[in-house]
Amino acid sequence: MQRLEVSLGPRSYPILIGAGALSDPASYADFRGRLRKIISDENVARHYLQRVLAATGLGASDALVLGSGESQKTWQIAGQVLDWLLGANVPRDGVLIALGGGVVGDLAGFCASIYQRGIDFVQIPTTLLAQVDSSVGGKTGVNHPRGKNMIGAFHQPRCVVADTDALRTLPARELHAGLAEVIKYGMLGDADFFAWLEANVDRALKLDAEALGQIVRRCCEMKAAIVGEDERESLKGGPRTLLNLGHTFAHAIETHLGYESWLHGEAVAVGLCMAADLSARLGWISAHDADRCAKLVARAGLPTAPPDSIAPAEFRALMSRDKKVAGGKLRLVLLRALGEAVTTAEFDDVKLGQTLEQSCARARVA
Amino acid sequence: MQRLEVSLGPRSYPILIGAGALSDPASYADFRGRLRKIISDENVARHYLQRVLAATGLGASDALVLGSGESQKTWQIAGQVLDWLLGANVPRDGVLIALGGGVVGDLAGFCASIYQRGIDFVQIPTTLLAQVDSSVGGKTGVNHPRGKNMIGAFHQPRCVVADTDALRTLPARELHAGLAEVIKYGMLGDADFFAWLEANVDRALKLDAEALGQIVRRCCEMKAAIVGEDERESLKGGPRTLLNLGHTFAHAIETHLGYESWLHGEAVAVGLCMAADLSARLGWISAHDADRCAKLVARAGLPTAPPDSIAPAEFRALMSRDKKVAGGKLRLVLLRALGEAVTTAEFDDVKLGQTLEQSCARARVA
Repeated sequence: MQRLEVSLGPRSYPILIGAGALSDPASYADFRGRLRKIISDENVARHYLQRVLAATGLGASDALVLGSGESQKTWQIAGQVLDWLLGANVPRDGVLIALGGGVVGDLAGFCASIYQRGIDFVQIPTTLLAQVDSSVGGKTGVNHPRGKNMIGAFHQPRCVVADTDALRTLPARELHAGLAEVIKYGMLGDADFFAWLEANVDRALKLDAEALGQIVRRCCEMKAAIVGEDERESLKGGPRTLLNLGHTFAHAIETHLGYESWLHGEAVAVGLCMAADLSARLGWISAHDADRCAKLVARAGLPTAPPDSIAPAEFRALMSRDKKVAGGKLRLVLLRALGEAVTTAEFDDVKLGQTLEQSCARARVA
Repeated sequence: MQRLEVSLGPRSYPILIGAGALSDPASYADFRGRLRKIISDENVARHYLQRVLAATGLGASDALVLGSGESQKTWQIAGQVLDWLLGANVPRDGVLIALGGGVVGDLAGFCASIYQRGIDFVQIPTTLLAQVDSSVGGKTGVNHPRGKNMIGAFHQPRCVVADTDALRTLPARELHAGLAEVIKYGMLGDADFFAWLEANVDRALKLDAEALGQIVRRCCEMKAAIVGEDERESLKGGPRTLLNLGHTFAHAIETHLGYESWLHGEAVAVGLCMAADLSARLGWISAHDADRCAKLVARAGLPTAPPDSIAPAEFRALMSRDKKVAGGKLRLVLLRALGEAVTTAEFDDVKLGQTLEQSCARARVA
């Protein structure tokens, strides 16, 4: 088991990475006697709930198994989770476990953040996306008809247990979706890792254990460093905002589609291609590098253009509703170079229009 | 206008105290261009909403006026407030204003804490209780059928505007309720202030401006010092927990009554008497000092015994559900001396039983 540290002073915590980590009682040694409840979803619970119960000593009645999918990440369901926690008299020093993908982690983390003004929680991410991204960093929340993650809190987990074995039961589509975030890390901050992915993406797609281990470790390293510098995304254009590369585009797609038909990573994949396209139109990266991004995204089994139902005008309107609009000006994360992202409102709006037109046109052709 | 500072590093903020402060544009100078929405209740809005709109430059459509009373502090109404904020596209750098008593402040502050993972808010407390206690310190939240403030967050305001003129329209019953928290500050940390209150409580009851100004200032000074030492009430038995003097008893009463028939301060008043009674039974303070506490509470127009519908066994069961139960052991804030509170689980449980029996018996007689 490898151990990485997210350094946040009193809120520092370890990320434990390894095959079998979720079944190992040692992963939970810091919380003995305080673990109280597990929140999971039906797909993940089928495979892993028994193992986590055995490793933690909790019983079946300590688990709340939700339906699966983004539609669960609502204010109403958060209210039901809180009712359940309060009904069970979970004390203020109790620890909640989130066993599942990003939806379970975001929802359970949000509930932990506001249960009795905040209790500790442990993330056991079981999707690639959650292992490399959403389980680390403390962003929690639920969706709203007006937009994704519009209600939430920053609440750091006390530990992240990333078991690469759990990826073996992941549907291929979700593995691909996770690779979108992996590619994002290469694009935003590590050109060497991007090149490594170009050479090794096929191994990851075949679930090669060593390749997956390297991927999870490198992404968590980068995320831990970024989160350590900018815990609450409060630095304008600071390091943490770079993690939103592709996401303003992606959130527009997800809001348009209502969160259900596409996976988050699929929307991010398109957003990465659009961010690279705009960066190339601005002359900040070469057309060749933008093309490398789109090619790697496609090789990972991911879409490179938005759904054909969205028109450029709607796309722009949805983007302007994004949380990253400050003082009325749209800020985007774009590439100064492959491996070097920047958050900026200083871009030619006409070029953004071209990216939207062109991407939506490609969708209609495709 | 007097200015006190709550020192919390990057989350420091001023408390502005003075007659007319809420009508003065200078009170909002730090937020020019960022103020977006006001949340208030029908009673307070009738008297003060126009003045705040005029001072801030906001319009009537920027105000959400809720019904009044503790019954508004729910998960469901928080959801409606968030729907309204999202429907109005309030941006992440927007500032919310809470204009009202503790209910409005707690509810609006909670919504600010989770709107887009946290936006800034300004407290304009219009009750004595809110001015001396709930508006300062960052505790926000809503109630649950299982208990008061069971769902919430720590989220500091960016400014507190305490206008002592606003107390002129306060119903006498609410003025009395606020005095319960004022008496609490004397009991927990300042014997001189307690003695000053014994000499001056009648002036406060007659709304003497100078007396009210001194009260608000002294209580805010004490609260600011305590919050500065222990922002998230994370120190076990630390200074911040002392602010809960009387509150474990009070919460049991409020849960029993369903939050509506008694005001929070009325329940706290009884809790203060019970904490003093138990402290005297333990031999930590004299019977004379416990008597002084009950007398001052009574002179402030407040109850000194629980409602007659609650029996000792139920009282104890409700207390054990309190947030201050850690590791299964009930902790209480008690008095080592008048003016010196301590948080402890080290007390003779038999004596607690006597306090409960005796207090409930007094209620049945009264």
